[in-house]
Amino acid sequence: MKRMNTLASLGEGGLLSLIFKRFSRQRHAGLVLGPGDDAAVLSLKPGRVLVATQDDLAEGTHFERRWADFRRLGHKLFRINLSDLAAMGEVEPLGVIVSAGFPSDAPRRWATDFLEGLADDAKTFRTPVVGGNLSRSSKVFFSMTALGTALPGRILERSGARAGDLIAGVGPLGKAAEGLKVIRRGGKTGRAVRAFYEPVPHLRAAAILARGRLASSLIDNSDGLARCVAELSGAAGLGARVDLGEAPVAGDPDAGEDYGLVFTVAPSLWPSVRRALPRAYRLGRMTARMAEGRESPSGGYDHFHAS
Amino acid sequence: MKRMNTLASLGEGGLLSLIFKRFSRQRHAGLVLGPGDDAAVLSLKPGRVLVATQDDLAEGTHFERRWADFRRLGHKLFRINLSDLAAMGEVEPLGVIVSAGFPSDAPRRWATDFLEGLADDAKTFRTPVVGGNLSRSSKVFFSMTALGTALPGRILERSGARAGDLIAGVGPLGKAAEGLKVIRRGGKTGRAVRAFYEPVPHLRAAAILARGRLASSLIDNSDGLARCVAELSGAAGLGARVDLGEAPVAGDPDAGEDYGLVFTVAPSLWPSVRRALPRAYRLGRMTARMAEGRESPSGGYDHFHAS
Repeated sequence: MKRMNTLASLGEGGLLSLIFKRFSRQRHAGLVLGPGDDAAVLSLKPGRVLVATQDDLAEGTHFERRWADFRRLGHKLFRINLSDLAAMGEVEPLGVIVSAGFPSDAPRRWATDFLEGLADDAKTFRTPVVGGNLSRSSKVFFSMTALGTALPGRILERSGARAGDLIAGVGPLGKAAEGLKVIRRGGKTGRAVRAFYEPVPHLRAAAILARGRLASSLIDNSDGLARCVAELSGAAGLGARVDLGEAPVAGDPDAGEDYGLVFTVAPSLWPSVRRALPRAYRLGRMTARMAEGRESPSGGYDHFHAS
Repeated sequence: MKRMNTLASLGEGGLLSLIFKRFSRQRHAGLVLGPGDDAAVLSLKPGRVLVATQDDLAEGTHFERRWADFRRLGHKLFRINLSDLAAMGEVEPLGVIVSAGFPSDAPRRWATDFLEGLADDAKTFRTPVVGGNLSRSSKVFFSMTALGTALPGRILERSGARAGDLIAGVGPLGKAAEGLKVIRRGGKTGRAVRAFYEPVPHLRAAAILARGRLASSLIDNSDGLARCVAELSGAAGLGARVDLGEAPVAGDPDAGEDYGLVFTVAPSLWPSVRRALPRAYRLGRMTARMAEGRESPSGGYDHFHAS
């Protein structure tokens, strides 16, 4: 009788009709044709460019099935992708496309909870789920593409920093990693757990930084602070000196998964940044490149080295 | 010393710089910002809508590591996604975004071969790889989002068939499944193997069907003929009678993975279809819905039932 509650017993057709039912009534100005055909059709307002990114969650790396809350993994997948859109500047989400791989003997709830999580955040972020794909896979994986639109002048790339610019951030540092420790010990609630499962995509802060040209470069710190500072300085051909004195460090800031923003800003614009974003904090300063290389801390999260 | 040739020894940074080197020189009118930032930026020509789809390949389901040719899996991933764009009508590919999950102890060649396969097809189909994501994963998985653009009047949905329309197709039927059998026995060459690894996305045929409004509905037959005929008839509220007499059946047509097109066409337009697409063949006819349900064969490939 146990088979009754597996995905195999529901069948792909059953799961697909749940999906279509769940996502057929979405409304969004850009949505021309949503789930149910070979592809989604979307429209962009004139003058806007498309911003597109993909990020994944894989069993054994980003979560373990013995402790995973699949509804909250739906939230996480949605938010880590929206965070990548935010890291490009003033970007308006247009829609997301989601792939999921589940084993045949997976409990139905894994899939239905995951769908509920997606539906929650589609509503929260007014961003429709426009399509996707289901596969059979012995390990669970989730992949999402987030699509957004922007005015071309409101894009902030990684490479725009100048020597002397301040390095600054918004959002938590190290909190998600603390949350993961709590979860591994069986914890399910609290702010750290929420930081791990429900990171906040800083779309509004990024829009403020891009609209006023306050930031000279922008990235999200999903791979840890050290690595993203190295990205910003490397892309600009600069060095960097990090000082965590002002930063809201709640755990190892280089452990990754925080999804705050890190950006550079001319010192003269820092008062404007603080007025617009009272929770922004300084993290250091961009320096001329040193002969022997960058001064920024090395490290961060390498996806192919055991941590 | 064996570790020297693994992805862990190359590191994520090493692999990413290979990727950026490989895909930094792509040229495409729509490409504003390619790999290397948090997201890609693309532009659409005025008046065109965005067409977006996602499809995956998962170890254990779509391939086995003991026999997989990772370069050719790059081809397959590219083509199954372009096939979904083709299945929407006259769609011009704009770019693809690729996610890959590999174990740390995977041979470097799995990743570098896969990248070569992507680069081959980016060139073949003039479709840049605009971004992606790398994850550590105990089972290999690949996920791609294909982005394209279309004039709104050149989209062919699944649901447009009328009773009396002919059902027709282009492309192989059952050949990919024959190829998989050959591959499992150790075969590496031949037309069936090619049908499995390098399906042809029928972008041009779809464009012809959409431009002249020759087809009333369109789908790709990746999930097998029976299932896609059931999709077309179901979406139109019709029944269907299938007759394989004219069809180039080379194996089980319901086994899936062929990536031909299946479409419906008013009988009066069939001569025009044959003139424009001499290799198109008839597959049956749409009928009024029967009280007891569709006449189309049931079956097809269910992703959560063992096959």
